[in-house]
Amino acid sequence: MILVCNDDGVFAPGIKALTEVMLELGDVIVVAPDSPQSGMGHAITISDTIKISDMSKEVSYLKFSCSGTPVDCVKIGVNRLAPRRPDMVVSGINHGSNSSINVIYSGTMSAAVEGAVIGIPSIGFSLSDYSYDADFEVCKPFIKQIAEDVLQNSLPKGVCLNVNIPKTKEIKGIKVARQAKAFWDEELDQRQDPRGGTYFWLTGVFKNPDEGQDTDEFALAQDFISVVPTQFDLTAYEQLNTLKQRLDYVGETQKG
Amino acid sequence: MILVCNDDGVFAPGIKALTEVMLELGDVIVVAPDSPQSGMGHAITISDTIKISDMSKEVSYLKFSCSGTPVDCVKIGVNRLAPRRPDMVVSGINHGSNSSINVIYSGTMSAAVEGAVIGIPSIGFSLSDYSYDADFEVCKPFIKQIAEDVLQNSLPKGVCLNVNIPKTKEIKGIKVARQAKAFWDEELDQRQDPRGGTYFWLTGVFKNPDEGQDTDEFALAQDFISVVPTQFDLTAYEQLNTLKQRLDYVGETQKG
Repeated sequence: MILVCNDDGVFAPGIKALTEVMLELGDVIVVAPDSPQSGMGHAITISDTIKISDMSKEVSYLKFSCSGTPVDCVKIGVNRLAPRRPDMVVSGINHGSNSSINVIYSGTMSAAVEGAVIGIPSIGFSLSDYSYDADFEVCKPFIKQIAEDVLQNSLPKGVCLNVNIPKTKEIKGIKVARQAKAFWDEELDQRQDPRGGTYFWLTGVFKNPDEGQDTDEFALAQDFISVVPTQFDLTAYEQLNTLKQRLDYVGETQKG
Repeated sequence: MILVCNDDGVFAPGIKALTEVMLELGDVIVVAPDSPQSGMGHAITISDTIKISDMSKEVSYLKFSCSGTPVDCVKIGVNRLAPRRPDMVVSGINHGSNSSINVIYSGTMSAAVEGAVIGIPSIGFSLSDYSYDADFEVCKPFIKQIAEDVLQNSLPKGVCLNVNIPKTKEIKGIKVARQAKAFWDEELDQRQDPRGGTYFWLTGVFKNPDEGQDTDEFALAQDFISVVPTQFDLTAYEQLNTLKQRLDYVGETQKG
């Protein structure tokens, strides 16, 4: 059984395309947000209730919409809605890239990371095309190839895959890559509301000073699909010793 | 100049305590959410507007509340509200632990991570006490000590600190540690609304099977403050070669 999630919402064309590919590989359960949740990062719903709607009557597989975040969908899908523990969690196909630094803002990738936290092999798929009617057909054989590999060979514990697909009609192949050291140069678009109040839109320009040829951005620029093994242990291990020398401290017993 | 943020909201006692410590170290600008944002992860506001209120008249430093997420607060604080580029971003003091896996769900830590993404030395502080009237006095000297070290010695590029403080009157010292491999065993509390509909509350039990004595959880259990160097490059480097052998693929040129 394969759990399918996303962050663009249950009605997005991207999750429809991903579901179609997964139905060729096994039983499917879709659990996805009832509205778009882009940019939700690894948000979870802890101060509000969560509601579920069963949409399975419309289709030949299990399908639920959920009022929560992408991470909520994976938690609820695995722990409550799936009749048995899923063999794989897939998320997407995201309408827009989640390469390089975008991985930390992405609800699509957070769903995949949550699958890995739960201990299930997980993949997030994103297409570098933000448009609603993006063409998801070209990438379907590649998605099937990667998903089949993961179903057969699993993934190392604590690691999921961040798969990004270039916007092209001629995909050149697949490259395993590292996350490029890129960032958003932020801008704030300041406006006046009708009553004279000030508000902002968050906007920005993507900047990639990373010239490495082993990055996801480089692969995508060459019309390759990028696959980044992505972990949720955020410890910067190579910094532990230096910081120990600076910060480790055993105080005298302090009486409160 | 030090930028202070949090995820419990601008009115939380934890950010008041953190601001008091930072005022001993330099100029301060507070930019924090106008309402609690726990569990927001690295969410950003891209489908809605953001509003800012200037609260500086109430205090002797710059203070703003923001309708956005903790990450929004850091972006807007650095790029728009601070009169000059901050030397440090601090977030917290969070009401509740952000140790081990909690780092990926935490709005407090996401604010610190965003500071590091922008290239500013950043620290997230959390106290293992969820109560509103938690005692933040005991930890103040330690927070000052860690913040002073970071102001003096900076931090490696791409790394921020995740500082967690035990709930105790006798803090034993400070230990640099790795993120424990712990997780939440999720439960869903199912209820009926007054009209007979079903809704859920997300809940769970924290499980830590990681027996390492070099983890943040171990340090906290010994009444030490834990400091985890935390990075936003999520690449699982040690998996690159194995996955290259499995997935790297150069296709024949495919005509679309």
